[in-house]
Amino acid sequence: MTAHPGSQAAYQLLKHTARQALASAPYTGPLWLLDPALVRQQYLALQQALPRARIHYAVKANPHPAILHTLQTLGSDFEIASEQELDSLLQLGVDAARILYSNPIKARRAIRYAYQHGVRWFASDSVEETLKIAAEAPDATQYLRLEVDNDSSDYPLGTKFGLAIAEVPDLLAQARQHGVDIGGVHFHVGSQCRDPAAWLRAIDTVWPVMTLLGEQGFRPRLLNLGGGFPITYDKQAPDIASIGAALMPRLAQLPANCAVVVEPGRYMSGPAGLFICEVINVQRKHGKRWVYADAGMFSGLYELMDGFHYPLELNGAPAGPSGQAILAGPTCDSCDVLSEAMPLPDTLREGDLLWFYHSGVYTQNLVTAFNGMPAPRVVVCPEQS
Amino acid sequence: MTAHPGSQAAYQLLKHTARQALASAPYTGPLWLLDPALVRQQYLALQQALPRARIHYAVKANPHPAILHTLQTLGSDFEIASEQELDSLLQLGVDAARILYSNPIKARRAIRYAYQHGVRWFASDSVEETLKIAAEAPDATQYLRLEVDNDSSDYPLGTKFGLAIAEVPDLLAQARQHGVDIGGVHFHVGSQCRDPAAWLRAIDTVWPVMTLLGEQGFRPRLLNLGGGFPITYDKQAPDIASIGAALMPRLAQLPANCAVVVEPGRYMSGPAGLFICEVINVQRKHGKRWVYADAGMFSGLYELMDGFHYPLELNGAPAGPSGQAILAGPTCDSCDVLSEAMPLPDTLREGDLLWFYHSGVYTQNLVTAFNGMPAPRVVVCPEQS
Repeated sequence: MTAHPGSQAAYQLLKHTARQALASAPYTGPLWLLDPALVRQQYLALQQALPRARIHYAVKANPHPAILHTLQTLGSDFEIASEQELDSLLQLGVDAARILYSNPIKARRAIRYAYQHGVRWFASDSVEETLKIAAEAPDATQYLRLEVDNDSSDYPLGTKFGLAIAEVPDLLAQARQHGVDIGGVHFHVGSQCRDPAAWLRAIDTVWPVMTLLGEQGFRPRLLNLGGGFPITYDKQAPDIASIGAALMPRLAQLPANCAVVVEPGRYMSGPAGLFICEVINVQRKHGKRWVYADAGMFSGLYELMDGFHYPLELNGAPAGPSGQAILAGPTCDSCDVLSEAMPLPDTLREGDLLWFYHSGVYTQNLVTAFNGMPAPRVVVCPEQS
Repeated sequence: MTAHPGSQAAYQLLKHTARQALASAPYTGPLWLLDPALVRQQYLALQQALPRARIHYAVKANPHPAILHTLQTLGSDFEIASEQELDSLLQLGVDAARILYSNPIKARRAIRYAYQHGVRWFASDSVEETLKIAAEAPDATQYLRLEVDNDSSDYPLGTKFGLAIAEVPDLLAQARQHGVDIGGVHFHVGSQCRDPAAWLRAIDTVWPVMTLLGEQGFRPRLLNLGGGFPITYDKQAPDIASIGAALMPRLAQLPANCAVVVEPGRYMSGPAGLFICEVINVQRKHGKRWVYADAGMFSGLYELMDGFHYPLELNGAPAGPSGQAILAGPTCDSCDVLSEAMPLPDTLREGDLLWFYHSGVYTQNLVTAFNGMPAPRVVVCPEQS
């Protein structure tokens, strides 16, 4: 087991705030603590590791206003997936020119809305989308989301998005015919990519398209490396400095007028979250230990089912020896089983609190009202003086 | 393909209301229409088919106040999974004595809250839960959720809940020691059970426990048959009259002082919903047709992924010949693919509206804010005069 994040200095405020919240009001349901200072720490580390790249935070990962505000203050740019995400940025006063609309499939009204509010860069991965954007956002620039290998990632992003390289010439022919400005390319290596060579291979895959754009009279000026930068769950992630060291020599070879962009989500906000829930039952069934919590797949812990095993403390202290257990959520649905085999402390019993670190993304924004289970109470750590 | 529900008289109001909603305001995102009159129709049919059973509506299926109000007016009882569901019933003036708390795993505070508000019947499937209920709800009655075969159901409810029959004696010993009133038994045959014999086999499985309760000095007086009554998606479901005809002779053999309870959720509200969303892109990738909608697994269509294929109309009219397509949702997550092989009309194109019937349950209450995608707008059909 890796060193526990809760023991590191940067997590002391998160921990202190959690203890205060639990001391000031009796526990009545899940809590979700957020420390924007940890987002700042991640931002600065990424900026230092990849000075050649502009950082466009992927709002979908954690759209809490405190996170967006902290990033705006730091000078971050942003990446959105919807009109609502755009609205939340505009409300904070973010300049629309600093926003990329990277969702490759958008409703026509969403394109129109974003264009009317000043967004000028839109992703496409098909002729259909390119013509739609051209119609609704006439002088916008498009960048092509291209298919690349996802084999190095813990969580490949599959086949849902991405234009095959072989189909690029057809799209370019249509784009030229409609006067569309194709300004660059985009890829995603998959979530939790722990091998820096994956980005290098992807750059090699997509660079010929940048060359082709230039040859065909377009102005290629954006290389969007997407996200996928890893954080530590149960497996130790390589640190961002080593990923930067692997990528920078390759980025240094690019033409000076080519903007490089990254779109971190999990990397930026993941470490900033602490999710606390309660054990409401422990029992043995058919020789196995079952642990039931008052939060599950429908109330913030969805990613546990995908194997994102958050570093755990029991009642805010390092947990003792752990045997395997089945961890289940509180709803009546039998699919609400978070893990069939999770290491959980042997001493654990009803009433104990599970402290899940690194739960800053895809938690609060995946909450449903299923079974009438309440959304976690959100507590934002105060700014440090 | 079975006869389409949209062509039946009972659906005309739903259809008419949908047309009016679309005519009176431009489409700007998913709509979810609800017709309480269809809930009434289902309630009356079930009551007629199973006159020996009290109907306790499973609030989790669709907790919309209009549905709860209609059922209360009809004299229905209710089944809850949480404090919040209890609150929604109490706000309507439902008598707590008419409520069963059938979630077998509950937070201690939830038991206390329900007890303080008058709930007196609680499910348990373990010694741990029984002692917890005994401590927090001292003179309440408990009924045992028992393991039964789920093999006849399209969607078995798995192993998460249910006490093994072999472990009943241990629990009863503890119950007697703590003066707990064990008043009956409960089972669930699984969702969408299309074989009436499954309930008969389950009754045969659990009845010896009722006998044992009597022998050991308890007062067994509740047999809870759970839910699982099917509705028609792509496969034709047997009608409720035929299920009732199969069950009634067996129920007639029960002692007169044994109350029989059913807990329908999907059966009651499923037919009352119509979910409308828009096709935002159609493209071919690697030889397959991909259809992207503006609603997906995170915005109301979660059950499509489990194979609940709602009867479909295109733009409110019967759809023409259908080839297979991959149906995907609007978020940037590659897991947001609703079906890898769904029959979708060949004529379908961007801007078309998909009308999904029988979508009255596990839609609105499974909505998240993921990617900033909006929740469907809810439209309740007016009462018919």
